[in-house]
Order: sequence, then C-alpha cells, then structure tokens
Amino acid sequence: MLKWKITVSIYELQNIDNNTKARAGALHTIHGEIETPVFMPVGTAGSVKTLSPQDLKECKTQIILGNTYHLHLRPGENTVELFGGLAKFISWHGPTLTDSGGYQVFSLADRRKITEEGATFRSHLDGSELHISPEKSIEIQTKLGSSVMMCFDECVSSPCEYSYAENSAERTARWAKRCKNAKKENGQLLFGIIQGGVYHDLRKKSAEQIVDTGFDGYAIGGLSVGEPNETMYEVTDRVTEYMPADCARYLMGVGTPEDIITGIGLGIDMFDCVMPTRNARNGLLFTSKGKLRIKRAEYKLSDDSVDDECGCYTCKNFSRGYLRHLYKSGEILALRLNSLHNIYYYLSLVNGARNAIKLNSYSEYKKNFFNKINGGF
Amino acid sequence: MLKWKITVSIYELQNIDNNTKARAGALHTIHGEIETPVFMPVGTAGSVKTLSPQDLKECKTQIILGNTYHLHLRPGENTVELFGGLAKFISWHGPTLTDSGGYQVFSLADRRKITEEGATFRSHLDGSELHISPEKSIEIQTKLGSSVMMCFDECVSSPCEYSYAENSAERTARWAKRCKNAKKENGQLLFGIIQGGVYHDLRKKSAEQIVDTGFDGYAIGGLSVGEPNETMYEVTDRVTEYMPADCARYLMGVGTPEDIITGIGLGIDMFDCVMPTRNARNGLLFTSKGKLRIKRAEYKLSDDSVDDECGCYTCKNFSRGYLRHLYKSGEILALRLNSLHNIYYYLSLVNGARNAIKLNSYSEYKKNFFNKINGGF
Repeated sequence: MLKWKITVSIYELQNIDNNTKARAGALHTIHGEIETPVFMPVGTAGSVKTLSPQDLKECKTQIILGNTYHLHLRPGENTVELFGGLAKFISWHGPTLTDSGGYQVFSLADRRKITEEGATFRSHLDGSELHISPEKSIEIQTKLGSSVMMCFDECVSSPCEYSYAENSAERTARWAKRCKNAKKENGQLLFGIIQGGVYHDLRKKSAEQIVDTGFDGYAIGGLSVGEPNETMYEVTDRVTEYMPADCARYLMGVGTPEDIITGIGLGIDMFDCVMPTRNARNGLLFTSKGKLRIKRAEYKLSDDSVDDECGCYTCKNFSRGYLRHLYKSGEILALRLNSLHNIYYYLSLVNGARNAIKLNSYSEYKKNFFNKINGGF
Repeated sequence: MLKWKITVSIYELQNIDNNTKARAGALHTIHGEIETPVFMPVGTAGSVKTLSPQDLKECKTQIILGNTYHLHLRPGENTVELFGGLAKFISWHGPTLTDSGGYQVFSLADRRKITEEGATFRSHLDGSELHISPEKSIEIQTKLGSSVMMCFDECVSSPCEYSYAENSAERTARWAKRCKNAKKENGQLLFGIIQGGVYHDLRKKSAEQIVDTGFDGYAIGGLSVGEPNETMYEVTDRVTEYMPADCARYLMGVGTPEDIITGIGLGIDMFDCVMPTRNARNGLLFTSKGKLRIKRAEYKLSDDSVDDECGCYTCKNFSRGYLRHLYKSGEILALRLNSLHNIYYYLSLVNGARNAIKLNSYSEYKKNFFNKINGGF
C-alpha cells in the first residue's frame, strides 16, 4: 500500500516584502492557524482584561496570551487542566500562547531569587514561596495546554552590566535545553528565547546557542525593558539575522504601535503587549492620528468618534463626548469600550501590515502610518 | 376630502389573566412600543453598569431607565440635549424612562432639605448645592428627552409616621400638578406617582388626587424602602384598585424576582431595580433554582453553567468554575458576565410571565416559579 506523508511546516513563509525585511506567513498550531504578522492580546489570568471572547473575535483576534506565573497562582494549572486546558477554561475557541514565568523574574525582581536550578518567588498575592524551574515551567504550561509554550528564561532589566547579561544568557541557554528535554510530544509548540541584553556579541552567541538547541520558533526576550527605542530596534535588526527564516520570530512584550510597525519591518512575526488594554483602562486611546486622552475637557461636547477610520464597535456607536462622560463617571463600561477600541486598532494595524507585505508595499504602509501618527489631530 | 383620525391609546390592554390580576399589554411611546409586563434595567448615569447597548439588546431589553439627579450632575442635561437626548447620547436605540430625582429625596435624606418649592441637595460628587423643584425636574427630563418622564415626588422612608406621610403625600399631589403644568406637548409621556407610605387611607387619597390630575400612566412610589414584603404586597394590591385599568402601572424600585412575580400577579405592568446589576457585581446570581453566590469554594471545579435553563451569553459559554475564578481574581469581565446573566434572567422571567398571561396560565407560571426557587439546587 502506498502511503503519502504530508509534512506541514510549523511556520509557512508566504512572502518577504520587496523593500524591507517584513514577512507574511502562517504559524500552524494544534488549535488552528495564525496568520502573521500577528499581535497577541494579553490575557494574564485567563481574561484579556474587560473583554469577552466574543469581543476578541469581533476584533479579529487570532491568538491570546496567558501568563504561566499568574495562572499557576490562581486558579492553578491542575484546575485549568481539569477544565480541558486554558482555551476551554476561558471559552476561547482558538490558539493560545503561554509565557514561561521568565518575565516575572524581571518584573518581580524584588520578590525572587535565581539559582542554576530555577527561580524562587514570593507570591504577589499572599507572599507564599513558589519555585519555578525550567522543568516546572514546562510542566505547568503542558497542563495549561497552550498551543505555544515558551522556554523558561531570565529576562534582565536595562541597564544591565555585561558580565551579568553574559552569565544570564548562558544560564538561559542551559535552561532552554532543560525545557526542551522536559517537553512532551503532544503537539504543543515550544519556542526558544534569545537573551543577551543590549550587547550584540552576547545576542549573537545566545541566538546561536538557542537555535542550535532547536525549537519550533524563536523569540527575542529582554527588550522593551527600559532601553532606548533606537537600541531596541538596533538589537532586533541584528538578532533577526541569526534567526532562521523558516521559523516564526516573536518580539516579546513589544510594544507601541510605532514599535510594532518598526518591528514588522525588521522581520518580526509575533508581538504581545499589555499596552492597548492597560492604557485603555487609563483613558489613553490609540488612533490612526496618534494618541487620544479621552478625559480631556475638549471632548466634552464632541460628537466625533474616537477614530473616524476605525470600524470597531466603540467607534461605530459612541461619541468622544459619551466615552469621556463614562470615563469621568467611573463607569466600568468605559474600560471595556476603550479596551475594545485599542485592541481592534492594534489588530487592524497589524492586519493592514500583513496585507501590505503581501502586496510588497510595506515601506509605503509604514511611511503612511508614521506620517499620520505624527500629523496628529 | 375624507380624513381618518386614528387614535392609539398610550397603554393598550391586551389580556387580563383569568385567575389573577396579571395584565399583558403594550405601552406606546415616541421611541417605540414596550410590551408589558416589563422590567427596566437601571442605567443611572447613562450606562446600565458594565453593559453595552448590544449586551442589553441581546438580553431583549425594551427600555432602560436613567436617573435625573445623576445625569443633572454629570454630564448635565444641557450636554445630553446637545447630543440629541439621552437615547442618542448613550447610543440606545429604544425607549427610555427618567425618574424625577424624587427617589434621591429618600436615598440622600441626610443631604437634602424639602420645602413646598422643592428639594435642595448637596451633591454627592462635590458637595455643591442644587435645587430640584417639580418645574426643574420636568425641565431636566425634557432636555434629557426620555420617552417616559416621572413626576417629582417625595419618597418617604419606612417606617414613617402617619402625619408625615400624610403631609408628604399631599405635597406630592401638589407637585404633580406643577409637573403637569410644566410639561411641554412634545410627545414625551408623564407618569404620576402615588405616595402615602403604608397607610391605606393615605394611599387611596393619593391615588385619587393623582388620577384626578390625570397622567399618561401611574406609578406606585415609596415601596421597597424598608417595609416588610407582605406590607408591600398588600399596599400594592389595594392601590392597584384605585388605578385606571386603561393606563400602565409602574411599581417603582421593585425588586427581587419574587417581588416582581408577585407584583405582576397584582396587576403591575412595569418594574425597575438596581438589584440584578448591583448584586451581579457582588457575585450574587439569580437563577431558576434560586440565588447562587459565585465565589463559593464548591464551584471551583464546577463545569456546570450558572443556570442550565438560561440562554444568556454567560450561561452558554462559561462554567461556574471559570466565573468563580474571574470573580476571585478581581477581573472586570466577571462583573459584566454576571450582570449580563442577571439582566437576561430578569427579562426572561418577565417575558415568560407575559406569555403566561396571554395564555391565561399566570397562576401556574407563578406557582412553578416559586416551587423551583424554593426547591433550590
């Protein structure tokens, strides 16, 4: 009997823009395909704050991110597993990505200790001690059942001394191997993370070590942690040179619309950031003409939508005047309508980028974006 | 030339249940028809807390309530008028009802003074003094452009001495005439409010005075303010005897599902209450089997929906376990999913009542409701 073996690559490169490094592609996961470039809304503890899965679908969200550290603390990975994994638990019918807890090594720096074995945290909820090692992180992420898991790494802050960044990147490489060894063959993808701070030689070495170990995709970690924008762009530009073209590239924790448009031009496929949701809750809205602070008095009587180029539920139905009133009155609906807009804006921006890349017109798309943003209202 | 003048009554009585006083009907407003009995979600300051107009439509909301006192303070009736009235301001494509500020005479008792002219409040927002008279209340409600306006009244607390209740009801009757005189002929409806505390003779006299003045519909105010349930039911039962059968009857600020089912059986057509939304934000869910406190530990691993008889977005998509997790984690989404369920539950309950009345089976509907509620989980 003749048998055909059809091999589908994990990342499918569909086009590279003629004039930039921007790529259009698709990432294949057990929970579905993700068209790239893609922005992934952050659902820290099992909820993209204020938004329902229905809201996220209306924004054309493809994949959402969950935080291993937060989900481990509450409700616990065993609970999530009992419900059939993260996606089923939160009623999200699509792919998910879990971080590894490595970011909390950075963000909870005053609450953790690092050894070769792993990191020990004091819970930000009740102060209890918890230990996350590479093996533990993979165990948790396996139970969470995400489509894409991330290696447990150390994300160093900026500025960070060379020797610390070097030792940390070396440890991250050793941890990456342990993560790979701990992974089950269950269809979940595992991405490696390149560290090395702002030092090009360390980044190069880290990239080589991580790529040499071999993962389903590669991420650049440790950026957008306090360094100047130009440094972030420069490091990204160089590091992508060491990343395989036939694998997805993920720039972790980035960023502003400007960062994302720039990152796409440097060959990045995946982004995540709390910025659209967190800023929304603080009344800061992203628009095609730049940022808009909804609480400003000038919007009190404005019957304009937030962004006349936006097709989101908020922009199609509500005036700046009403949104300002909701925000000033402390109405919870304000937080949701703002979040809905910002997420829709981010995803539309990235979707527009993808279309432009397919038409080999990304440099024009990027130029138009910056012209409009800088033009203001 | 022959001309036909078609007169549509404001309230259209469609059926009275064979075995109870329950009525099915319709209220015709300039912003559309409302099928009764009806429950009106409360949108205090221009938002039914946590819910969008889309959410409300999905719950089959027919009419929402706005609070004159709150909207007067923020954003102010002139602002709302500039946006084309309350419905347009909040993007609600349907009827609205505004209260008169009279309820705040009760709820802000320590912040107001009453004279024959009206009530003087200190703002709960900034302490500034504001004055609401019958004429001012109608002026504000006219600018808010609600489909149904309410007369400015004094809602007394319970217990309330006979002499105070008597004087207050007399003043409310005088204020009602001033409201009627202040009303413009612009299609907005104006409802009179019957007061008189728990005293049957005062209620009878108040009803006669208010009905004698003549309004587009009639409300029973001053109940659900601390008196025993049985007293509320008894007063309602008696007062409806003095209310015209060809006008809508509104029991203000009521109440629990039990109160509403009982009230419908006594011939009430309209209800409003913050209970479904406020309790939702406190994690208390109303179900066909009674109340459910979502934070209870027993639901941690429950894959059941909140109410297996409920067709709301929350019940169709989420487990008790996930809703408990959201609530315990302080996620804003918890407040919305809970509110969505409670509003859907209230509206389905009242819609079911309407269908039963049309089939002359309301007493059976009521019996089934109480049997199930009392049966528990």
